[in-house]
Amino acid sequence: MLRTRFQQSLDELRSKLLSMAGLAENAVDIAIRAYLERVPELCQKVMENETMINLAERKIDEMALDLLAMQQPMAVDLRFILAVIKSNADLERVGDQAVNIAQRVMDMIALPPVELAVDIPKMAETVGSMIRQSLEAFVSGDAELAQRVLEMDDIVDRMNQEIFVSMDTAMSASPQLIRQALDTIIIARNLERIADHTTNIAEDVIFWVKGTDVRHSFDTGALIPRAK
Amino acid sequence: MLRTRFQQSLDELRSKLLSMAGLAENAVDIAIRAYLERVPELCQKVMENETMINLAERKIDEMALDLLAMQQPMAVDLRFILAVIKSNADLERVGDQAVNIAQRVMDMIALPPVELAVDIPKMAETVGSMIRQSLEAFVSGDAELAQRVLEMDDIVDRMNQEIFVSMDTAMSASPQLIRQALDTIIIARNLERIADHTTNIAEDVIFWVKGTDVRHSFDTGALIPRAK
Repeated sequence: MLRTRFQQSLDELRSKLLSMAGLAENAVDIAIRAYLERVPELCQKVMENETMINLAERKIDEMALDLLAMQQPMAVDLRFILAVIKSNADLERVGDQAVNIAQRVMDMIALPPVELAVDIPKMAETVGSMIRQSLEAFVSGDAELAQRVLEMDDIVDRMNQEIFVSMDTAMSASPQLIRQALDTIIIARNLERIADHTTNIAEDVIFWVKGTDVRHSFDTGALIPRAK
Repeated sequence: MLRTRFQQSLDELRSKLLSMAGLAENAVDIAIRAYLERVPELCQKVMENETMINLAERKIDEMALDLLAMQQPMAVDLRFILAVIKSNADLERVGDQAVNIAQRVMDMIALPPVELAVDIPKMAETVGSMIRQSLEAFVSGDAELAQRVLEMDDIVDRMNQEIFVSMDTAMSASPQLIRQALDTIIIARNLERIADHTTNIAEDVIFWVKGTDVRHSFDTGALIPRAK
């Protein structure tokens, strides 16, 4: 009976983490919409959203700590709770990155709009899909799905690198674009950082499910270590 | 007796975290020396160093998990172990940031050296001092010292912002400097990110010692919430 209540608490913890992920993903979506549509109010909304994310993070941490303190969780449950604690911290930082994007967008809105050969929405879409898949992996305990998230990180790293190079070129060709290109580079880096957080979450899922640590794996087999 | 052995294990965990911090701090130092002296071998050393940091992270996580699984730690010990787990993750990411700096330095070394009105070493010194102080706070359980680390974060944020603005100006004035100025901006952002990780560690210390969560505090009193 006690065990059942404990399991219920774990379910509740998982569902709280999902809501937290929803808030974080939403923050990124709004920040990218703000970038596309150049709407300061959307930037403002991202900043307000952050307060909710921070509050949600704290509640999840408290619940996880209570579960660790009051119960003696079995190995797999212990790993699950630790995965929640770590993923929770990563999701909060996704929220921070969304705020950073919103700040760069505010900077861009104050400047004349320019055409830059860069596809931020495509990069954001890939990153958004990484957030969703890492959380899907969390819900279903699906280590293979988590593994696919790790593989997607390389794509995002490449996009970030391409944006850096093409903005460098654009600035040299058209110095009047420098500030906007700079903002674009920082936004791309923020997205790349969000992708890193989703790979952390995916690694936490694999660790929870398999009991093995895929981070920095020296294994050259099926598991792919986190791309730096 | 069992309790004594447990305390010994906690001491061992703490000393492992300190070694880990030493590796991370060292990686940042070497990356900044590589920047100052333009030495590719030092960049290489930072990359090699990362393997050691990753290995150390894994060992600490394993030990912390074993302690959680095998013992039923009291509240304060539980908070300590969680603080170790979280700080450990932050230190590993400090190592990642050092690698990012080393990559930018490699890029700069391939370009002609230029004079830029920017004081990266000073920023690095402030960040290095934040690393050391957050770990000192960890060793001595000194929440007030941890609090001072949180306050230093604003200084680093300001330095980062100043470098962004001055490099933006430098690029517009001298488009031939664009790439080097870009690299400098990214290095400054990496340092600012390292400072963020030290504030995470400082918050973990305060949480462990005081049992209160200072993150995103709504209290406007003595505790200063993390600067974003």
